[in-house]
Amino acid sequence: MSNLNFPSQLLERAVNEFSRLPGIGKKSALRLALFILKQESEEVTRFVEAVKTLRDDIHYCRVCFNISDSGICDICNDKNRDHTLVCVVESIRDVIAIENTGQFKGIYHVLGGLISPMDGMGPDDLNIDSLVSKVNERKVKEIIFALSATMEGDTTNFYIYRKIAGSNVDITSLARGVAVGDELEYADEVTLGRSIVNRLPFENIE
Amino acid sequence: MSNLNFPSQLLERAVNEFSRLPGIGKKSALRLALFILKQESEEVTRFVEAVKTLRDDIHYCRVCFNISDSGICDICNDKNRDHTLVCVVESIRDVIAIENTGQFKGIYHVLGGLISPMDGMGPDDLNIDSLVSKVNERKVKEIIFALSATMEGDTTNFYIYRKIAGSNVDITSLARGVAVGDELEYADEVTLGRSIVNRLPFENIE
Repeated sequence: MSNLNFPSQLLERAVNEFSRLPGIGKKSALRLALFILKQESEEVTRFVEAVKTLRDDIHYCRVCFNISDSGICDICNDKNRDHTLVCVVESIRDVIAIENTGQFKGIYHVLGGLISPMDGMGPDDLNIDSLVSKVNERKVKEIIFALSATMEGDTTNFYIYRKIAGSNVDITSLARGVAVGDELEYADEVTLGRSIVNRLPFENIE
Repeated sequence: MSNLNFPSQLLERAVNEFSRLPGIGKKSALRLALFILKQESEEVTRFVEAVKTLRDDIHYCRVCFNISDSGICDICNDKNRDHTLVCVVESIRDVIAIENTGQFKGIYHVLGGLISPMDGMGPDDLNIDSLVSKVNERKVKEIIFALSATMEGDTTNFYIYRKIAGSNVDITSLARGVAVGDELEYADEVTLGRSIVNRLPFENIE
């Protein structure tokens, strides 16, 4: 499908644009373009306006860098949440995922990525200084690292840890272990090993 | 993921629009929306303009109903192609697929669907009358049915066949058989059966 001949340049252009989206190959892009052709013009207008205004009108919360429709996001504006408990995440996507568990009542701090020298991402490219400031201003009692369990995630955890280790703040990390519902024999060795080392008193298991 | 809480209505709207596309669930739609957020504004403008102009500026060939950037498509305009040989297909997608084989030098006739009473598609919803007219005007020597090997495809084949059976036109259909490269033991029984019944002299196999 790499050298498709298109009967129309308009179609070819739309297919090329769709195939730039993540996870969309040429064949899926063609299906999407032909779907667009079958829609009412008003529906397509609604679609493209939603995409364009998302890009151009979005705001980022100036407290936690979550996206928001105004200057401060709904979570940071919520007085019922614990503003001394900050969950550090890589991206907006993680905020949405954790919010949907309904288990967290603190606030967030979105780094905007992870330290990854291979990808040219250094500490200065991330929202780390503002996190350190929050801690130094003694607004925060506990920081929860909720980054990916990868080398980049661990590097970022360690970098931030060193920056704030002197402060009077509790530093915790997401529990790692066998996933709920998983059969033991299919858990990988590292996860299984960690879950034995970090075992909990049985009455603490929820 | 059915009841995601979004930190922004702009994001929620874009995710809802993306998830209306075929094959895109809520989770993929969120990934696409977050990808859009990371793009330059000009890139997003280019994307939405390509989609909008595809829908609003596209033309359909008035001879074969293929899409086209003008009134008659490049294939119908090509004098080197055999205009007496018409391949009947369901959709534009099939035109693109057959063109990419490089094996067909006739022209096409795009029905725009298949007869499917379950989906409320009757013969009058398809470009069948114009096909019958072409045959009656004796412009066509051979019609090749290249519709899906499904009940809807067979029904449509049969309907068109009855409409033009009296005309002096050859009616053929795509060969059905074991796919090139397939191992025999994995071919389904019906296909295998048909390929035995419709076996060819060995020297005709390409």
